[in-house]
This record gives sequence, C-alpha cells and structure tokens, in this order.
Amino acid sequence: MLTEIQEGKAFDSVVKHITQEKINLYAEASGDFNPIHIDESFAAKTPLGGTIAHGMLSLAYVSEMMTSAFGRNWLSEGKLRAKFKEPAHPGDTLTINGKIDCIEQEDDVSYANCSFECRNQKGEMIVTGETIVKFSSDKK
Amino acid sequence: MLTEIQEGKAFDSVVKHITQEKINLYAEASGDFNPIHIDESFAAKTPLGGTIAHGMLSLAYVSEMMTSAFGRNWLSEGKLRAKFKEPAHPGDTLTINGKIDCIEQEDDVSYANCSFECRNQKGEMIVTGETIVKFSSDKK
Repeated sequence: MLTEIQEGKAFDSVVKHITQEKINLYAEASGDFNPIHIDESFAAKTPLGGTIAHGMLSLAYVSEMMTSAFGRNWLSEGKLRAKFKEPAHPGDTLTINGKIDCIEQEDDVSYANCSFECRNQKGEMIVTGETIVKFSSDKK
Repeated sequence: MLTEIQEGKAFDSVVKHITQEKINLYAEASGDFNPIHIDESFAAKTPLGGTIAHGMLSLAYVSEMMTSAFGRNWLSEGKLRAKFKEPAHPGDTLTINGKIDCIEQEDDVSYANCSFECRNQKGEMIVTGETIVKFSSDKK
C-alpha cells in the first residue's frame, strides 16, 4: 500500500514475462480458448505471426499494480479506461508503470486520477490508460 | 462473429459460474495472489465476508463476448472503459450482456460504440462499461 497518496506519486512497477504456459493458464481461468491465443500452428498462419496473450492479461498486471498501491479501495470501486495498442506475444517481458496524476476532493471523499502504461522489452506500447480510485480523505 | 454490424445489435450473452477453483487458476495465470482472492479464512474475517474474484476476471468475460462479436478487430485495437461496482464471489453466476449503441464513420474507418453490463444471479451490477471497436467499413 502507498504510504502517502499524493499527486505525482509513482507506483512500484510490475514486470512480467509472458509465456505460452501463462497464456494457456489464462485461457483455462477465463474460459477464453480462442485459437489465436492457444493454437500455435493456427496463429502462425495469421497476420499476427503467432499466438498472442489475452489483452486482459496485461490489464490483470495493471490491476495487480493498483491493488498493491490502493488495496481494497481499488478492488471495490475502481474505474479503468484502457486502449489496447499492440498484442503481447510469448517471450515478451512486460513492464507496467503508473502514477497518480492528480487528486480531486469532494466533501470527505477523494479521487486519485492515475495513468498507466504497459510496454514490452522493445519499448512498444501494449496497453495505455487511466484509472480512478476513490478513498476517504482521513486515510491520506 | 456478428453477421451485421449495426446500431442496436445485441451480442450473444456470456454466462459464467464463479468458483474458488477458477479464482485460484486466475491467480496463477495473472500472478495476483492477494489473499482476498485465495485465502478463504483470511477473507472471511474482512468486511467482504469471503473471497472475491479478481475484477479483471469479469472483464475477461466481457472481452470474450467482444471477441466473439468482432474477432481480431477487438483483439488488436479495442478500447474499454469499466466501472467496478460490486465484487463477485465464488458461487455467483455472472451474466454479461452488451450491444452496439452507435456507429461512427470517419473516411473508410468505422467505430462501433458498445456498452456492456455484468450482473450476478441477484441482478446486482458487478461491472458496467463501454467499449469501442474500430473496423473497416467494407467489412460491414
């Protein structure tokens, strides 16, 4: 959890290595067995050139970063906006960074407006977006 | 895949039963082992009264609905906005519904603006939000 919720505060980065095994586990967990994720010979023949991770797997890592920073305030009433830019492939290493851009206050409730980026090892943007977390000001 | 992309078109619903086993699989796939998701005795002592599914698991089901409707157009360049309203618990059955609200055209590219809802078996809203999918108008 963040010790201080303040504007400009960066979150601890999350770094994840993508493997076909993790993608297969994700397919089982989510029930999404689209062949573009799990069938390597099918995927190799598509313009994507191989299997890709579920886009929501990258968002799961964003959520992990947000949970580490905000705990239950993120889990119960978070808001998220995401743009999927490029797919992640097995072998990629994803780094998720984020920070608090600004804090808005309304009576005794505060909102942390945050931004995040998920990039691969080449620096290519995989997902970018914003999150909003509501918290009681007395917890500041 | 949708045979016709047109305003008002509803997607095929996705119905999923949440189990602790699926949550555990999701924890492994995502690497998010927060005890609120997987430690039943810990979670029982919190105000949430028991373990909860990762919020992104519900979004994975939304993504599955969107992939069924739009295929690669969703996977490669989708946009998503989500509000997490209530957590989902093991034993819940989630139903995800969505539709195309409007289509915007810009030169030879079109954008389907869609909305979705994920509710539990009591009708309580778990996640709600919007998605945008870009597609070539000649595929209409």
